[in-house]
Amino acid sequence: MQLDFQIDSVQSDLVTALQEKIDQKTKPLGALGKLEHLALRIGQIQHTLEPSLHKPHILVFAGDHGIAADGVSPYPQEVTVQMVHNFLAGGAAINVFARQHDFQLYVVDAGVKGELPKHPKLLHRKIAPGTKNFRHEPAMTDEQCEQALRSGAEIVMQAKKDGCNIMAFGEMGIGNTSSASVLMSILGQVPLEECVGRGAGLDDAGLANKIAILQEAISSQPASSDPLTVLQTFGGFEIAMTCGAFLQAAAENMIILVDGFIISSALLVAARLYPQVLGYCLFGHLSDEPGHRKMLELLHGEPLLQFNLRLGEGTGAVLAYPLIESAVRFLNEMASFTSAGVSRKS
Amino acid sequence: MQLDFQIDSVQSDLVTALQEKIDQKTKPLGALGKLEHLALRIGQIQHTLEPSLHKPHILVFAGDHGIAADGVSPYPQEVTVQMVHNFLAGGAAINVFARQHDFQLYVVDAGVKGELPKHPKLLHRKIAPGTKNFRHEPAMTDEQCEQALRSGAEIVMQAKKDGCNIMAFGEMGIGNTSSASVLMSILGQVPLEECVGRGAGLDDAGLANKIAILQEAISSQPASSDPLTVLQTFGGFEIAMTCGAFLQAAAENMIILVDGFIISSALLVAARLYPQVLGYCLFGHLSDEPGHRKMLELLHGEPLLQFNLRLGEGTGAVLAYPLIESAVRFLNEMASFTSAGVSRKS
Repeated sequence: MQLDFQIDSVQSDLVTALQEKIDQKTKPLGALGKLEHLALRIGQIQHTLEPSLHKPHILVFAGDHGIAADGVSPYPQEVTVQMVHNFLAGGAAINVFARQHDFQLYVVDAGVKGELPKHPKLLHRKIAPGTKNFRHEPAMTDEQCEQALRSGAEIVMQAKKDGCNIMAFGEMGIGNTSSASVLMSILGQVPLEECVGRGAGLDDAGLANKIAILQEAISSQPASSDPLTVLQTFGGFEIAMTCGAFLQAAAENMIILVDGFIISSALLVAARLYPQVLGYCLFGHLSDEPGHRKMLELLHGEPLLQFNLRLGEGTGAVLAYPLIESAVRFLNEMASFTSAGVSRKS
Repeated sequence: MQLDFQIDSVQSDLVTALQEKIDQKTKPLGALGKLEHLALRIGQIQHTLEPSLHKPHILVFAGDHGIAADGVSPYPQEVTVQMVHNFLAGGAAINVFARQHDFQLYVVDAGVKGELPKHPKLLHRKIAPGTKNFRHEPAMTDEQCEQALRSGAEIVMQAKKDGCNIMAFGEMGIGNTSSASVLMSILGQVPLEECVGRGAGLDDAGLANKIAILQEAISSQPASSDPLTVLQTFGGFEIAMTCGAFLQAAAENMIILVDGFIISSALLVAARLYPQVLGYCLFGHLSDEPGHRKMLELLHGEPLLQFNLRLGEGTGAVLAYPLIESAVRFLNEMASFTSAGVSRKS
């Protein structure tokens, strides 16, 4: 599989001018803390001293997982399709937060097991009704993986055409913390036990069982550290599609708001392919899934919120959005010492 | 001085019903982390399963400090009045964030040195043009302290009449981290060095000088642990007024969003007088002022944001507001497992 995303490194030629603008605002130097770092990064991504946010989008990629048959989640597999219906009806947590912050929300059927209706907020991109069980065979074929990456990229292109310049990605898929843990363990070279958590709420025995099953699965497949091979072998359709979305969003110079553990596993794949994608990413939160802290280290990510969330759907990304907006607003709207006639530090 | 605030303890008779409502939402148990704690607390404060937020207000109390003459701040004292003008012109950080989150902002002249104009957003409650230098004499008289407490309470009563049920307080006053540090040290029984920081940006020598001056000031005044005596001796007019505002807001059953170090020192006084005031408080952030972490411990406060802010003005409280709103919204708007037809954990 050949990828040809054109992703520029985030430029730094405006750093000095941006920092000077920040330092002239009527506040002690550095007093807005992390908001100042955000403003600096956003200015760099958009190559401007006057950044702006337009039509934020949240894409929720949904897919089912063959590995779910082995009891790695306390919830039955049909919850994936049920939750997609809940998204379309507007009743899930991500709907609430998307409405609050005026995000355009689209649900993407990347590979849900079950038929889904026509709906203006549902994008039909089903690769197959669930991946294969990677305990026994690769989760997807080479062609399926490529198709998923391409679909994710195309959806982002459309959002860009619709005027969006900041995107968040979310996911839904019973069993998908299992995929994410394996991707992290292999691509991050982290012991599997440090990558596996309770997901949607496993008890101790369930957690031990999940680790054992995933260890067996890793051993049963040919060893590879090639990101696309690992993605194809152990990934999910929603994870692969998110990976393509990340790469295209970076290629389009968009600001990307990263959600929790599973979405970060898609970013890890993307970053192993194109390290410069990380320059476009702002990290919404540190989740309660224990592997996420180490995952953020692998991605050099500083989380905006530490709220013990472990829901997915993009909730931790969208909840953090007002802070991004605050960073942009202070940079554009605050008075300078000169314009406000305020004395400087002696 | 006799205070007669009527403050109920936040009731807990709805805890079970609120928790049940939270647990029936379409998400794994506890998956919204701190948002769930917020929803629970807000439901308790408002005594309802369907809380709501109305007309949020931010009151910025401004005052000058006699101790500023001794070089405890790197900024000249006239910055207080200059920043009040900046607030009225809409150019300060708190203006930006108040506009973003639709807060009503009022600036209160609690004791600014300098004349201020008539302005629809400025409340003239000047006790005196700055406190006395508490290195040499008590910062204010008994009558001034009482007047400040009463003015703070009255402003909150007016906000309540205007339909507000959630308030944030901010402050501006060159030298006021000095007052806050001394209040914390005495009322919290914390060694002074752990309560003093760089404020608006002191260097090492300035910090050492600030500690020495404050130590000398504490020694020069009669020892007392009576909260009102300590407030009167070492406080500021803006701090005393905020203390009165806290007490009245709790008496009015309002949700109170607490800002950083200085505002927390006013809350510490309030909580030493009426411990039940803390039940109404949500803590916006952990600030970069080093004493704030310990201050939050004294107040049993869990900060929502950790953004290394050290600006005051109420910025850390207002920035955290969307998270409060998210908590209220998920409680009211999310579907339940039953209503959405989603299967529960097996």
